[in-house]
Amino acid sequence: MRLIAFKHKDGRQALGARIDAATLADLTADGVPDSLDAVLGGGEAAWQQVREAASRARHRLRLDEVHILAPVRAPGKAFAIGLNYVDHAAESNFAPPKYPVIFQRFPSSWVAHGEPLVRPHVSTQFDYEAELVAVIGKSGRYIPSEKALEHVAGYSIFNDGSIRDYQLRTNQWTLGKNFDASGSFGPEFVTADELPPGAKGLRIACRLNGQVLQEADTKDMIFDVATLVAACSEAMELHPGDIIITGTPSGVGLARSPQVWMKPGDVCEIEIEKIGVLRNTVVDEQG
Amino acid sequence: MRLIAFKHKDGRQALGARIDAATLADLTADGVPDSLDAVLGGGEAAWQQVREAASRARHRLRLDEVHILAPVRAPGKAFAIGLNYVDHAAESNFAPPKYPVIFQRFPSSWVAHGEPLVRPHVSTQFDYEAELVAVIGKSGRYIPSEKALEHVAGYSIFNDGSIRDYQLRTNQWTLGKNFDASGSFGPEFVTADELPPGAKGLRIACRLNGQVLQEADTKDMIFDVATLVAACSEAMELHPGDIIITGTPSGVGLARSPQVWMKPGDVCEIEIEKIGVLRNTVVDEQG
Repeated sequence: MRLIAFKHKDGRQALGARIDAATLADLTADGVPDSLDAVLGGGEAAWQQVREAASRARHRLRLDEVHILAPVRAPGKAFAIGLNYVDHAAESNFAPPKYPVIFQRFPSSWVAHGEPLVRPHVSTQFDYEAELVAVIGKSGRYIPSEKALEHVAGYSIFNDGSIRDYQLRTNQWTLGKNFDASGSFGPEFVTADELPPGAKGLRIACRLNGQVLQEADTKDMIFDVATLVAACSEAMELHPGDIIITGTPSGVGLARSPQVWMKPGDVCEIEIEKIGVLRNTVVDEQG
Repeated sequence: MRLIAFKHKDGRQALGARIDAATLADLTADGVPDSLDAVLGGGEAAWQQVREAASRARHRLRLDEVHILAPVRAPGKAFAIGLNYVDHAAESNFAPPKYPVIFQRFPSSWVAHGEPLVRPHVSTQFDYEAELVAVIGKSGRYIPSEKALEHVAGYSIFNDGSIRDYQLRTNQWTLGKNFDASGSFGPEFVTADELPPGAKGLRIACRLNGQVLQEADTKDMIFDVATLVAACSEAMELHPGDIIITGTPSGVGLARSPQVWMKPGDVCEIEIEKIGVLRNTVVDEQG
């Protein structure tokens, strides 16, 4: 299934299933909870309800009639992974890591598909990063990597937008990775059964104003999804709705010559094969 | 005022004001919201209600009858600051930073005063860190440092417990700073008006089984509370309930010779003058 969290014109939130390119079934109108967070938290009973409502597809809407929201509204924990493709580590002047490099993003740092990415007035170094997101569906601590994919409910797309001068001002990246509305997440949540195990072997790309600036295959990650789930769960119990943003391939703006920074009016698209296209326009901060 | 979030024996949560060493006034029984989070979010009207209920002190409880909770139940953002005392930066083999080193802790990584600190079975390098916490009371973005203290509602104490081998396994500290139940926060929230501006000039200490292992003055921070609030707010709008854990002085276990690690049965106390004592016993992880 391909699920989309959305808001009706009157502001009511709901969860939908995509039926075809232009049509959504409103599952919430058919009794399903109004967020993917609640479905993930509800376990197998909630998923059964989602599958039944999606197969009935009683309440249909045109996709262009709704406001798409980020797939998970409030992840308890959002992990992000640094330097997880060999070529990107090299272009960033880091050795390929021997262990996953884990940092974090606050939910205030991202917007949904179609919402504006905000360039803050304190920097012009606004960079894009195409990334696969794994969404946790089942709790666990010390999850062995060979069982880790059982804990992943599905996948989505992230633009790990970064304010580079702030990111690199100290040795910890938190600040430059967490500017308000500097990243994006969505549009769809694709259940794991629709994709190859671990979402491996999918083409991932970033296009800025139509120009391809990143292009790779998700199988080229240094640490695959199973390994990342296992590593995060060594420190913390993972819970449904937690997300892991799995790192970006080479081609970021920082490493280009001349450097490429996102500016107002730019359209940034992240595409992952079989998952979709996450599209956002860049605006300057108001006020 | 000195406020304590707590749980009654029957599990009901409430907010109290400390009346004397052994007595608490249950403010929630007198109409105040049941968490500091709600009071902080309620602004001046909620604070007025708190002050009135605290001055009436109608419903009194013995402090030893209640289960103390962490002061803020669910901070939207918990910032932690690294290397913020010159001597600690030196003992950690880092140059004193020129800009605040900001990382983050998830709420799952800390417990309340009196609850056990958990040493995970994957490491023995469990270190303590005495820290002052500033709690945000008023929203703001791009807050100038000269106005920053207006955004701080009060202060508390944090033990920024760290699993050192995981913290230093890569260049990002997130994992080793976020083991479940590895830190602690509390017991009291002391309103800013009870303390010197910016909580400067207060003795801060860590004692392990009664032995003083850290001892410093909060005025020795490289970046003071006002500067930290300003720096965090450059990237993100701060909101009531956000917290800034302001960094630790020298004397951590990692830097000692021989190294000192917390082990089951140890009692770790963090004391900050005029704020209180945060006390936790260490246990080994179950199962």
